[in-house]
Amino acid sequence: MTLDRAGRLVGIVLISLLALSATLARAAEPLASWNDGPTKSRILGFVQAVTDRASRDYVPPAGRIAVFDNDGTLWSEQPVYSQLHFAIDRVRSLAPSNPRWKTQQPFKAAIEGDMKALAATGEKGLLQLVMVSHAGMTSDEFTRIVKDWLATARHPKFNRPYTDLVYQPMLEVLDYLRANGFRTYIVSGGGIEFVRAFSEEKYGIPPEQVIGSSIRTRYEVRNGQPVIVRLPEIDFIDDKAGKPVGIHKFIGKRPIAVFGNSDGDFEMLEWATSAPGPRLGVLVRHDDGEREFAYDRASHIGRLARGLDEAPTRGWTITSMKRDWKTIYPP
Amino acid sequence: MTLDRAGRLVGIVLISLLALSATLARAAEPLASWNDGPTKSRILGFVQAVTDRASRDYVPPAGRIAVFDNDGTLWSEQPVYSQLHFAIDRVRSLAPSNPRWKTQQPFKAAIEGDMKALAATGEKGLLQLVMVSHAGMTSDEFTRIVKDWLATARHPKFNRPYTDLVYQPMLEVLDYLRANGFRTYIVSGGGIEFVRAFSEEKYGIPPEQVIGSSIRTRYEVRNGQPVIVRLPEIDFIDDKAGKPVGIHKFIGKRPIAVFGNSDGDFEMLEWATSAPGPRLGVLVRHDDGEREFAYDRASHIGRLARGLDEAPTRGWTITSMKRDWKTIYPP
Repeated sequence: MTLDRAGRLVGIVLISLLALSATLARAAEPLASWNDGPTKSRILGFVQAVTDRASRDYVPPAGRIAVFDNDGTLWSEQPVYSQLHFAIDRVRSLAPSNPRWKTQQPFKAAIEGDMKALAATGEKGLLQLVMVSHAGMTSDEFTRIVKDWLATARHPKFNRPYTDLVYQPMLEVLDYLRANGFRTYIVSGGGIEFVRAFSEEKYGIPPEQVIGSSIRTRYEVRNGQPVIVRLPEIDFIDDKAGKPVGIHKFIGKRPIAVFGNSDGDFEMLEWATSAPGPRLGVLVRHDDGEREFAYDRASHIGRLARGLDEAPTRGWTITSMKRDWKTIYPP
Repeated sequence: MTLDRAGRLVGIVLISLLALSATLARAAEPLASWNDGPTKSRILGFVQAVTDRASRDYVPPAGRIAVFDNDGTLWSEQPVYSQLHFAIDRVRSLAPSNPRWKTQQPFKAAIEGDMKALAATGEKGLLQLVMVSHAGMTSDEFTRIVKDWLATARHPKFNRPYTDLVYQPMLEVLDYLRANGFRTYIVSGGGIEFVRAFSEEKYGIPPEQVIGSSIRTRYEVRNGQPVIVRLPEIDFIDDKAGKPVGIHKFIGKRPIAVFGNSDGDFEMLEWATSAPGPRLGVLVRHDDGEREFAYDRASHIGRLARGLDEAPTRGWTITSMKRDWKTIYPP
């Protein structure tokens, strides 16, 4: 053996040992950004029970399905959903080719950043905004537009990219569940293609495990190349009672673990946790106005009231961001 | 060590060796029910290329998505789709509580087994038949009804359960692809819940990897128990140009391997195989009237014309059931 070759071997062994020790460290301390307390214990205890073959609560890997709301559960949703910021920015960038928008609502409000006037246009106005910003292009073009936006846009309060504002403790829950044989899904009221544009990179969740609201699409061959074209018509609203419908349609199984933060997630938690067998229902409560935002019953976004009232009788765990989370965002 | 214990150990070792040799045999001869020829070589060569890290056609496991049509590609579809037989049998079993059906089309035709009269009621008649047989119950009830039917119904030509009429060579393709890191999906014009009722047991394809046509559903709480209720409204038709749309919606990735048998699969093959990189497109041709059925251009079900015409220029492989398959059905 040459010295050179011996050196390389030593290097390989060292790298292997480092990788091993990192793995062991992770295995030794899951949920490192969680303070000890009832939520952390509940999550650890649940995963222990369903993965222990000797436990009467054992669940084979095929049944280990965990679903997560996105806005307010995996990343910040205040002061307004990131996707609404995206729609507004998109309208602004399209405004030069649509001069009539300057005097036409809801576009005028979006261009001027007048959120009050925008809200006054109601559901109809918001829908118009979504359609001009989300439809009319191919799916590949839309993904590119979203990725470009995510790379440059900044959150108004934190002045950081939106994708920096994912919750470190929840990333650890995703990792921990996957390390224990779970498949992790997003079930978002947001647009399925919008979320897919960053879910794999930021959450380790591939496109086929993202469920969300959608607009209709059409298959077309353009200049010999097939494309999926996005149409300005609602296909499916994945919110409230739509969430169990979406889960059933895409997965065809009832999840055993479910994480949400608002009454938009109520039915999804209800559906998953009212089946027999071990079930985990967790609601993230936004009570940390200093590090993030504080809101629940009175909020226009991410309203949480019925969930708070019924969590105790339904066996759902309320996570306090203030009390349970050592850090909010990744370092 | 007691003799008894030694005996048990020998038994364990023998069983392990047997299991190992079976594994090796499988590994040594994939696609055992396929005759040597262009299709078998094409499938083996493709899988070899995309799994070989040294190949310029290497595809990481996350991109190894293979999609399969169901009727006529994974199981027999003649003389009429199994799901139509199911609908007819269901109407018959509901007929006693619906006495007016005796004189009302399309129900009269279904009850009397008059396929000509049934066909004469057209798309509207068939839709009515599907709605009364597929809607009005919960998703759990529907799955139970389908499973009960599959357990008792018999194919009119072969007098065997429909699920016996899956194609052994295609089961081997599914196994072979999965053994090489592929995820296998069904993309069926048939009903998603109908196919899910047997896809895991018969094909090893879990519910979350089944895409199909669907009716609308609604989430409801009945006597404190949440259910998914099936409504008599079309949600999505997963056929022709709907197949790439369904694939994009459910998977969000473009498959690299696609298997079909009719012009209803044309767009799905076109979409998957016209992207850059290694692609496999296979059409199963029903040319074995002795062992199965012989039909293509003129058939009312599973019509294959454009696919035959364009396969050569598009690089798709035509599989002849007569020439390429040693056996049709599992032993």
